Amino acid sequence: LRCGIPEVVLAEGKDTPHLVAIMKRYLETTGRCIASRATEEQADAVRSGVPDASCEYFPDARIIILSDGSPVPKTGGTVAIITAGTSDIRVAEEARIIAEEMGCTTLTAYDVGAAGIHRLFPALQKLKDANAYVVCAGREGTLPAVVAGLVGRPVIGVPVSVGYGYMGKGEAALASMLQSCAVLAVVNIDAGFTAGAFAAQIAHGADQ
Amino acid sequence: LRCGIPEVVLAEGKDTPHLVAIMKRYLETTGRCIASRATEEQADAVRSGVPDASCEYFPDARIIILSDGSPVPKTGGTVAIITAGTSDIRVAEEARIIAEEMGCTTLTAYDVGAAGIHRLFPALQKLKDANAYVVCAGREGTLPAVVAGLVGRPVIGVPVSVGYGYMGKGEAALASMLQSCAVLAVVNIDAGFTAGAFAAQIAHGADQ
Amino acid sequence: LRCGIPEVVLAEGKDTPHLVAIMKRYLETTGRCIASRATEEQADAVRSGVPDASCEYFPDARIIILSDGSPVPKTGGTVAIITAGTSDIRVAEEARIIAEEMGCTTLTAYDVGAAGIHRLFPALQKLKDANAYVVCAGREGTLPAVVAGLVGRPVIGVPVSVGYGYMGKGEAALASMLQSCAVLAVVNIDAGFTAGAFAAQIAHGADQ
Amino acid sequence: LRCGIPEVVLAEGKDTPHLVAIMKRYLETTGRCIASRATEEQADAVRSGVPDASCEYFPDARIIILSDGSPVPKTGGTVAIITAGTSDIRVAEEARIIAEEMGCTTLTAYDVGAAGIHRLFPALQKLKDANAYVVCAGREGTLPAVVAGLVGRPVIGVPVSVGYGYMGKGEAALASMLQSCAVLAVVNIDAGFTAGAFAAQIAHGADQ
Amino acid sequence: LRCGIPEVVLAEGKDTPHLVAIMKRYLETTGRCIASRATEEQADAVRSGVPDASCEYFPDARIIILSDGSPVPKTGGTVAIITAGTSDIRVAEEARIIAEEMGCTTLTAYDVGAAGIHRLFPALQKLKDANAYVVCAGREGTLPAVVAGLVGRPVIGVPVSVGYGYMGKGEAALASMLQSCAVLAVVNIDAGFTAGAFAAQIAHGADQ
Amino acid sequence: LRCGIPEVVLAEGKDTPHLVAIMKRYLETTGRCIASRATEEQADAVRSGVPDASCEYFPDARIIILSDGSPVPKTGGTVAIITAGTSDIRVAEEARIIAEEMGCTTLTAYDVGAAGIHRLFPALQKLKDANAYVVCAGREGTLPAVVAGLVGRPVIGVPVSVGYGYMGKGEAALASMLQSCAVLAVVNIDAGFTAGAFAAQIAHGADQ
Amino acid sequence: LRCGIPEVVLAEGKDTPHLVAIMKRYLETTGRCIASRATEEQADAVRSGVPDASCEYFPDARIIILSDGSPVPKTGGTVAIITAGTSDIRVAEEARIIAEEMGCTTLTAYDVGAAGIHRLFPALQKLKDANAYVVCAGREGTLPAVVAGLVGRPVIGVPVSVGYGYMGKGEAALASMLQSCAVLAVVNIDAGFTAGAFAAQIAHGADQ
Amino acid sequence: LRCGIPEVVLAEGKDTPHLVAIMKRYLETTGRCIASRATEEQADAVRSGVPDASCEYFPDARIIILSDGSPVPKTGGTVAIITAGTSDIRVAEEARIIAEEMGCTTLTAYDVGAAGIHRLFPALQKLKDANAYVVCAGREGTLPAVVAGLVGRPVIGVPVSVGYGYMGKGEAALASMLQSCAVLAVVNIDAGFTAGAFAAQIAHGADQ
Ligand SMILES: Nc1ncnc2c1ncn2[C@@H]1O[C@H](COP(=O)(O)O)[C@@H](O)[C@H]1O
Ligand SMILES: Nc1ncnc2c1ncn2[C@@H]1O[C@H](COP(=O)(O)O)[C@@H](O)[C@H]1O
Ligand SMILES: Nc1ncnc2c1ncn2[C@@H]1O[C@H](COP(=O)(O)O)[C@@H](O)[C@H]1O
Ligand SMILES: Nc1ncnc2c1ncn2[C@@H]1O[C@H](COP(=O)(O)O)[C@@H](O)[C@H]1O
Ligand SMILES: [Mg+2]
Ligand SMILES: [Mg+2]
Ligand SMILES: [Mg+2]
Ligand SMILES: [Mg+2]
Ligand SMILES: [Mg+2]
Ligand SMILES: [Mg+2]
Ligand SMILES: [Mg+2]
Ligand SMILES: [Mg+2]
Repeated sequence: LRCGIPEVVLAEGKDTPHLVAIMKRYLETTGRCIASRATEEQADAVRSGVPDASCEYFPDARIIILSDGSPVPKTGGTVAIITAGTSDIRVAEEARIIAEEMGCTTLTAYDVGAAGIHRLFPALQKLKDANAYVVCAGREGTLPAVVAGLVGRPVIGVPVSVGYGYMGKGEAALASMLQSCAVLAVVNIDAGFTAGAFAAQIAHGADQ
Repeated sequence: LRCGIPEVVLAEGKDTPHLVAIMKRYLETTGRCIASRATEEQADAVRSGVPDASCEYFPDARIIILSDGSPVPKTGGTVAIITAGTSDIRVAEEARIIAEEMGCTTLTAYDVGAAGIHRLFPALQKLKDANAYVVCAGREGTLPAVVAGLVGRPVIGVPVSVGYGYMGKGEAALASMLQSCAVLAVVNIDAGFTAGAFAAQIAHGADQ
Repeated sequence: LRCGIPEVVLAEGKDTPHLVAIMKRYLETTGRCIASRATEEQADAVRSGVPDASCEYFPDARIIILSDGSPVPKTGGTVAIITAGTSDIRVAEEARIIAEEMGCTTLTAYDVGAAGIHRLFPALQKLKDANAYVVCAGREGTLPAVVAGLVGRPVIGVPVSVGYGYMGKGEAALASMLQSCAVLAVVNIDAGFTAGAFAAQIAHGADQ
Repeated sequence: LRCGIPEVVLAEGKDTPHLVAIMKRYLETTGRCIASRATEEQADAVRSGVPDASCEYFPDARIIILSDGSPVPKTGGTVAIITAGTSDIRVAEEARIIAEEMGCTTLTAYDVGAAGIHRLFPALQKLKDANAYVVCAGREGTLPAVVAGLVGRPVIGVPVSVGYGYMGKGEAALASMLQSCAVLAVVNIDAGFTAGAFAAQIAHGADQ
Repeated sequence: LRCGIPEVVLAEGKDTPHLVAIMKRYLETTGRCIASRATEEQADAVRSGVPDASCEYFPDARIIILSDGSPVPKTGGTVAIITAGTSDIRVAEEARIIAEEMGCTTLTAYDVGAAGIHRLFPALQKLKDANAYVVCAGREGTLPAVVAGLVGRPVIGVPVSVGYGYMGKGEAALASMLQSCAVLAVVNIDAGFTAGAFAAQIAHGADQ
Repeated sequence: LRCGIPEVVLAEGKDTPHLVAIMKRYLETTGRCIASRATEEQADAVRSGVPDASCEYFPDARIIILSDGSPVPKTGGTVAIITAGTSDIRVAEEARIIAEEMGCTTLTAYDVGAAGIHRLFPALQKLKDANAYVVCAGREGTLPAVVAGLVGRPVIGVPVSVGYGYMGKGEAALASMLQSCAVLAVVNIDAGFTAGAFAAQIAHGADQ
Repeated sequence: LRCGIPEVVLAEGKDTPHLVAIMKRYLETTGRCIASRATEEQADAVRSGVPDASCEYFPDARIIILSDGSPVPKTGGTVAIITAGTSDIRVAEEARIIAEEMGCTTLTAYDVGAAGIHRLFPALQKLKDANAYVVCAGREGTLPAVVAGLVGRPVIGVPVSVGYGYMGKGEAALASMLQSCAVLAVVNIDAGFTAGAFAAQIAHGADQ
Repeated sequence: LRCGIPEVVLAEGKDTPHLVAIMKRYLETTGRCIASRATEEQADAVRSGVPDASCEYFPDARIIILSDGSPVPKTGGTVAIITAGTSDIRVAEEARIIAEEMGCTTLTAYDVGAAGIHRLFPALQKLKDANAYVVCAGREGTLPAVVAGLVGRPVIGVPVSVGYGYMGKGEAALASMLQSCAVLAVVNIDAGFTAGAFAAQIAHGADQ
């Protein structure tokens, strides 16, 4: 764990035996291996290829976690993950699992942007102990700025590639987050991993 | 007046004698002439070049109105003009004057975005009789969507070319208005004239 | 109905049981549910999953309407929908159905751009009672400006993502509508829903 | 004259003595020299630096023509130059002068787009003997397509860098000309020289 | 034939019975119908759906020509079509067939750019009677400028969407043609139809 | 102080009396006022317009701080500010002053990228107690990723608009920070204010 | 071999019999033929279509080499090929094979970026006799600049189209390489062929 | 000299006393200092600020060289610098001076593109001993590819920011060089320094 951030193997585009071999090697070295953008089929292959390890697959996040079964030690700190809609959940889940893998407690409030601000207030109430907020939103991507106006802790905006037409693959969301009058930091479009790891770094600091 | 929309002479880039001549000709034909993107100097030249007409200059909107002094007949309808910040006022004023020239009553609420939503509610209250809303905003351009979520009448978003960095000349605002989940129509960046005239067309219909 | 605009469920990307469940819930709460970008297969699943409701599928618009069978009450106002070509009809139909769902009367003139302006005049004649016009066009997207030059009511341009080459997925149409010398408001590329709802808001005002 | 097209010296960015020297050299070799994007001051310097030659300056086109005074022989063919507005005239004049220099007769109709199509028909009537049409237009750039729908000869669209906001420096005009359903060929933004020379090539062919 | 240019039905995206019906209708009205971007399957369906007409399919150009069998009358003029590589031929063939349909004689020289300039000279020699040249090229798109430097007649550049990486779908070719120091006119990426029809207009003029 | 972040008045584009008035009003309400993108002349005007207050001007950061003279209470936490070159210092200073205004201790290491990595290690050593790092870099913008690979605390990348040519106004730096394999969060180009305030929020949390 | 660079047939998009015929012809003329972006199936077809020749297929590089079996004569010089990750290997292999075909010795160090700089030093040590370095990297594309800071020979950066989100198809890598403060030359995204041939030209010169 | 490449101080944007100080310090450490993008005034200030050193100013390249007067030792190798037009010379001269500073012999052929290929052949003849070619070209930027087709040594393309309209600030040239079928490597727009240093690295290798 360089700087406390787990290495993540990109499963997408790797052929399955190669993926299994890489993950097995990591498991032997570090006791744990994460693969992102993985299919259910790849997870099954890992499971049978490394039969005596623990292998979990998270379909929304498309993540495989291969481990010797020992739980991640809690390093402290709490990360909140919020999405505007349901399409953003796949990105949010990637963030959530990384933050958990980095030893944080995570809290989530999904789909609280679409239905109007009245669902947002009670959601934020539930998340009030978080040390950092990851807020995922597509289309015009305004939810992170709204949250940043309501909480006093750092808010990380994650533009999500849902939408259509002009700048509709997350670019409008990215642009509006960067231009926001609110105090926000931003990661790449769909970059759940980066957002989750960054939030965990904040939470670690806040817990020390 | 083709379709009830006044022709507007673009003063910018025209040399002054040419501008005075054009405006004088229009005045003689239609009793009225508007010039946009005009300087105070151009207004002075028009004033002395056409001494027996009425000549008003609006410095924020950079508009000259030359007329025979007769007021624009009220054709009915009310247009509300809103800005997020003070930098947006120059665009808003262009919209306001065109709507007035098209016979509408106008109501304004300027700089109601920057100071937080608590200034927006009483502002909208004052504007509640409007038949259409023109909302001008730069940077991430979210105010039109917020207004559209609060009023039941048509809202026209006007992206304003203030900001810096990535897509900072109104492009981020344009993109976020086009991608908005709220029901909004949009005009070109800084297009106060188009927004004001479009809103006036709506207001005319609503008053008949 | 927040602000009189129906919530629309985006069917695209949702798995079918989830879609059926959401639509059923909305139906129970509000007596009516619309899903957009839906396939015929999804419509069939809704039909069998909610057997005692009325379920209509509009293949051009790719819309499902699930209701208790009671008609939408006419709230007044007339919306005209125009397309330049036949490829624009899918977008136009989305606008038309939303306007109908919002209680407007709709009138259509499809494919009146391709064959030359001589087909446009009689078409506009038929549509002369409309309170607002939605004009859908791809490629260079000039039809909305032409219509705006011929009618005195508000015209909403909808760029359509047909075409090829340079800015050929609706971007040229969007750009030309935004730059138009005519008074036009614009929505996102392919945003039939927004255009139809916005036109209905205008028409409602005009009818009161 | 390679391929019958005059070499044109770009005056912009050259220091004046250097420009005078180059033009003098060309004059001695070929009896004629054209400089584009030239200032009045540069023209004056050429005039005094080459006192026994004929030196004309065209302020709209910003062109200097230095010659031994002999007229350009008519090589036949007629080129029509049209502009939508008055801001396009500087580009149109560049096209016109090049076509004249290539021995064509030129006909012009300027500012026939802004005031509506009713001014276009009589203008085209005057230009009906042209072998090719150069049509200059900014903003949404639709005039070339309109002309192409009305005449049977080749129409060359020239996007002009006037406008503001989204793609407002001629890019929207370029895009809409390239996407046009009408049969048009296009040159670079503000490329009056290329359009005029291309039209002259067509006219030469048509006259043989 | 408006302005002598055949209407072309875009087969792509139309369902087959609809296409057959449209083509049949055109055939009955005008004795001839062209469909572009058509598949072999669509051609077969047209052939069996309109059995007593003549139906040709051009696989490279992806064009169907349905006619009463009478040949296109020669209206005069010769158009040359040139490609840089073999990937450009599909676009070139579209241009060639339209020019033939407009009554021109066509001459071709395909794949003369890739193998170096030594193949270009004899090719141009064969094409020396052409009244206009259509030159198709992808990637950096320089062949049109080279041809324009060697022939005295109008050259129309057609950027082709082959290539990869930065601006690799024809955009680099479009940009380099527009910026060319040579006198060139340009059409949209892959716009064989427009280039062929434009060249035929030139050739018609040259032949009168 | 909404959420602990000071409101900042944008001095740029405001006329001086207006600026003085706004700052005076803020001073009276909150005891303190910050203006960004301010000139020395504006600072002088504020100084004489509000004579009995304390008025500091920071020429690199172009910031005016007007206060009743009482120091900002230390809220805890340490923020490190790093620049790759000297041109980035103006942005870095904006970040530093905001972080100070939010009660943080700040540490700086400027111009540690240009001279090679050997200057970076001792610099980071000096900054090792920071709770968050703000790293400003233009051109290819790689320094933030290098720092993130060496420290275990959150690193915020600030793209700076220095450079030339392709994406040379900070866009390349923005893109490379967003694509970075390192865990980084990013703010808008030149957005020193946002970066400093965000880092201060992190530092506050870490100190509690 | 024009300028010593082998012609390469682009297999992609060619139908198989056509490809076989072209390769056979080249083989007969020059004793050797390379096809790029080829599938295994195409290689099999070549193998059976030209049975008495030697036919090698390189699956990573997707290259077919058809030859009379005689080895490429060593023309001297050594080219090093480096990749940041494993996804870049397909591009690197294309470069390597071309350099070999041009008579160079090649050395490789693949996947030395992802695991941190500690794997890079020993890798560069192994490559220290190279006359030129080809460095392939996607995402933010910084490895070429790092290598250029460590070796004294020419480094060619190859941006690779892996990544996602903003400029994620190699554009960020291209931009960061072009903006780099290090001395680098760059080729198109994924342009392994160009990079390998260019490096071989350098190596040839260095060996003479 | 890290890797044999001189550090270059960017004079642009630095205030004069600061520049003089930096250059003086470098001179004392390394006996030599180069400043780029410098004005004549800055050169004069350096000259009087460091009176006992040798200070040369190159107005075309806008470079100052401050040294102890000892000549750069010839490290071997020859670099050729070519420009298409006269506007490209400022960039070419920057390349030339850096290559000289790195101990290479330089040969130049300027303005050989504009007047047609007939001037290019004798120019290349004069340059035939070069180990590498730097070719600077604006607008469509095709000269590097032409040269690469005629010489067997590495050719580095430098896009120059001259031109107008669509991609007219060097972007079209960059794109066409990257897409070129010829074997070329490319540097950033106007990056004379990088091109010259890269060519010198090649030439050094070729001379050993
Ligand atoms: N609350 C806000 N939300 C979004 N944009 C805002 C807000 N307040 C101000 N702006 C924009 O920021 C820019 C500068 O504002 P000002 O300094 O008030 O002129 C204007 O274009 C405003 O539209
Ligand atoms: N006369 C016209 N002017 C502009 N665009 C048109 C015209 N006719 C058709 N189009 C557009 O061309 C595209 C294809 O038309 P169609 O083949 O009829 O579906 C559609 O997006 C139309 O909007
Ligand atoms: N080692 C480096 N790596 C990347 N960028 C750098 C480096 N050094 C300087 N820069 C950038 O180059 C620009 C000019 O640097 P300077 O001349 O020091 O102001 C600044 O924006 C720096 O961020
Ligand atoms: N240390 C690194 N720095 C920059 N880019 C990297 C690094 N490691 C890997 N990459 C890039 O990330 C992409 C995916 O890497 P891989 O999963 O190893 O194929 C490749 O294009 C790499 O060039
Ligand atoms: Mg959102
Ligand atoms: Mg806003
Ligand atoms: Mg249209
Ligand atoms: Mg126009
Ligand atoms: Mg080509
Ligand atoms: Mg940097
Ligand atoms: Mg990399
Ligand atoms: Mg060139």
